[in-house]
Amino acid sequence: MYKSEQLAHSLKLLIENGTWKANQKLPSLRQQVEQSGLSLITVMNAYQELEAQGLIYSKEKSGYFVAAQQTKETVHAINEKIEINSIVFKYLKSIQSENIIPLGSAFPNSQLLYSAKLIQTLGQLARQRRSYEQTPSLPPGNYELRKIIAQKYAMQGIPTDPSDIVITSGGLDALNLSLQALTHAGDYILLQQTIFYGAWQAAERLGLKVITIPEHPVHGIDLDAFEQAILKYPIKVCMLMLNSQNPIGFTVSDEIKLELAKLLNKHQIYLIEDDVYEELHYDQKKPLSMKYFDQQNWVLHCSSFSKTLGAGFRIGWVYAGKFSEHIQHSQLMSTLSVNSFIQNALVEYLSHRHYEKHLKTLRSTLQRFKKQYFNYLKNHLPDSCQIHYYPSGYFLWIELPEQVNSNVIYHTMLEHGVSITPSHLFNITDQNHHFIRINCSFEINERIQNALNLLVEIIQNQMNG
Amino acid sequence: MYKSEQLAHSLKLLIENGTWKANQKLPSLRQQVEQSGLSLITVMNAYQELEAQGLIYSKEKSGYFVAAQQTKETVHAINEKIEINSIVFKYLKSIQSENIIPLGSAFPNSQLLYSAKLIQTLGQLARQRRSYEQTPSLPPGNYELRKIIAQKYAMQGIPTDPSDIVITSGGLDALNLSLQALTHAGDYILLQQTIFYGAWQAAERLGLKVITIPEHPVHGIDLDAFEQAILKYPIKVCMLMLNSQNPIGFTVSDEIKLELAKLLNKHQIYLIEDDVYEELHYDQKKPLSMKYFDQQNWVLHCSSFSKTLGAGFRIGWVYAGKFSEHIQHSQLMSTLSVNSFIQNALVEYLSHRHYEKHLKTLRSTLQRFKKQYFNYLKNHLPDSCQIHYYPSGYFLWIELPEQVNSNVIYHTMLEHGVSITPSHLFNITDQNHHFIRINCSFEINERIQNALNLLVEIIQNQMNG
Repeated sequence: MYKSEQLAHSLKLLIENGTWKANQKLPSLRQQVEQSGLSLITVMNAYQELEAQGLIYSKEKSGYFVAAQQTKETVHAINEKIEINSIVFKYLKSIQSENIIPLGSAFPNSQLLYSAKLIQTLGQLARQRRSYEQTPSLPPGNYELRKIIAQKYAMQGIPTDPSDIVITSGGLDALNLSLQALTHAGDYILLQQTIFYGAWQAAERLGLKVITIPEHPVHGIDLDAFEQAILKYPIKVCMLMLNSQNPIGFTVSDEIKLELAKLLNKHQIYLIEDDVYEELHYDQKKPLSMKYFDQQNWVLHCSSFSKTLGAGFRIGWVYAGKFSEHIQHSQLMSTLSVNSFIQNALVEYLSHRHYEKHLKTLRSTLQRFKKQYFNYLKNHLPDSCQIHYYPSGYFLWIELPEQVNSNVIYHTMLEHGVSITPSHLFNITDQNHHFIRINCSFEINERIQNALNLLVEIIQNQMNG
Repeated sequence: MYKSEQLAHSLKLLIENGTWKANQKLPSLRQQVEQSGLSLITVMNAYQELEAQGLIYSKEKSGYFVAAQQTKETVHAINEKIEINSIVFKYLKSIQSENIIPLGSAFPNSQLLYSAKLIQTLGQLARQRRSYEQTPSLPPGNYELRKIIAQKYAMQGIPTDPSDIVITSGGLDALNLSLQALTHAGDYILLQQTIFYGAWQAAERLGLKVITIPEHPVHGIDLDAFEQAILKYPIKVCMLMLNSQNPIGFTVSDEIKLELAKLLNKHQIYLIEDDVYEELHYDQKKPLSMKYFDQQNWVLHCSSFSKTLGAGFRIGWVYAGKFSEHIQHSQLMSTLSVNSFIQNALVEYLSHRHYEKHLKTLRSTLQRFKKQYFNYLKNHLPDSCQIHYYPSGYFLWIELPEQVNSNVIYHTMLEHGVSITPSHLFNITDQNHHFIRINCSFEINERIQNALNLLVEIIQNQMNG
């Protein structure tokens, strides 16, 4: 993170947690420079950022003051039937062509996945008859693969038995099977206001009612809103992303996760955690999943190899714990089982140290690329556009001025052969349609640079009406 | 078919179609020998078989007479909530171990699948980066694969465009997606009384009400019962198997299929045709699917490569026609898409003549094996057991005396390390629990022979009380 952003972030925290009250005067720029040891320009940038976010305001010749925080209805009930799947379908089809520059893609650049070693392993195994199982592997899937996955949990301090794990046809299948195990049509679930469209599609598929809570500017998840929601509505299940959240990018801290775990336990709420980006952290340490904080089996943890090895494999899993058998039953009724050859190949690949090495390279490449995108856009986009940069994953979440409709940006870009993802795919409420998500996993070459320039130009045009 | 069975079959037809009336005297054994040119013993066997089936009766010194056909309620409404999935799950788990002799397996012997050429193709492709698509192939799946499948329909005289086809995660997924596209919870569907448990599971999964029609002893499907059912209940969709029906094995004639197509059109009923055994005919000519007779898009035809190349691949499809987009939408919400590497590999394999050659070998092997099983069991089972032999596929359907409970046979066999499939997995009504299905795709070696001997012994023990 940039120094000015770091500063803005920590000041934000003071405001959000109430250390600084409304209308309280902030330290002057000079005081702040002395206190922080940062340059004047850095401090100014931080203050301006907070001002742009409406957290502070300036009075001429008096300095900066804490803005009164709006007390708005934070919990939102979606009263209409959810109908997002057709929109997602149309969107995905529209950006599918290979000729389109895929800044709107949900998947990392495949050239960074499918490592040489992985392809070599697949090539070797594919030639051997023993790689093809006699009969399709029944739920819960390949035992060796489940053992390897269980070990990965154990290494994070989460005691796990292979029988806790169910292998699924990708991460989306894991989410769907989990949600299906815990809900009936008409039930209430809680989602983040802005979340991966798959969560909305899953709710639509099962005919569920959705309550949303807004993102918290500092913590990622707003626990007050969370508790308000579960007190107000008969919610039994929530579906959340807490690590490298898609599309925004934040990772919730361990402290907040612990609090959330307590709330789940206190209110007896199941959490389906979508954690498919868990491996794409830039820090040394992999972020903890909610499973770590889960003492009473309230968490079903869903992940996959789609973002690290390749989405074409369609291999995901759910840490289902006591719901394992229930989920296996659902699976037997839908897809029967998961491709057995690919499961065998992954076992072979994951049994060596290839995966860790591959992840290391993948993470550092994504980090490098994402910084390049951030720098480029920061330098070229108008200051009124706020780029949410978090140190993980490969998405940038860009907040445009409120009058700019991201859907118009998407359509205009597409006419020029570039995809981006507009925010109405992640947030089905009527507000907040001025965000876009950018996939930063493609190295910035001339083609990408032209696409980014085009984006800047189109945004500027929209801002100018 | 044996000559005595052929004779019994044609006499049955005369009774069923009313040429021979109730209590009419049959030609004497001697007359029949003269008319047919068959031996006395053959004619006697045929008459005894018909008597065993209750179609004729004998009077001492007077000869044989046509039995009055029972006018029983043929259409059956399942009033209880369908709960078969857990039973199937438990059953599949119980027979899963590699140490169990798999006479109960639903899948053909994998040594007959996964041909050397297929493994070679997979091995070659797996080494090439281009085999792994950039992003997962979205519904409806790989275009080249759909084109090849469309061509297979076209070769049977069914004009088909690749856009009619949706690739699915195996045949069961195709059935589920199709049924989901055409029904809502609480709707009525029509099933054959005895049918692949996947059809029952699909009905359970979607909360559908089921009406069944019995099998017709000659035609396979009872069109009178079919029409009765759709006149009596508000059925919109039926799910049927008409080629190498699982578990019984019959293939419905073109004439009956044509009549069925007319009924579908007349009553505006959709048919989801489960045709996963279509390639396993022993005749020169592949049986026609209902799609051939379908003028108005009432048929959704589901098939897969699971019974010919390997179930572990999880690649099936549905000829969805005008429902293609609807089904794609459902797919996007559940599994997102199908493994792209396997789709690519199948395209490569199917683009050459390997598949036709493989099928030829597979068919003749299955035919040889099934005859061996039939001969062996015919010679060793008590005469009161009727073995339903049809010239396709790899199942024998064995009708035991009514007092024998096939579930007891299954459990007793399993204790001795051999699986068979009892009829209550295919027929959830309270009757007809005296049938078993035997998988004949494993060459009869000493181990299998011991298993068959055991089966004979256990059946005899049960018959003797």
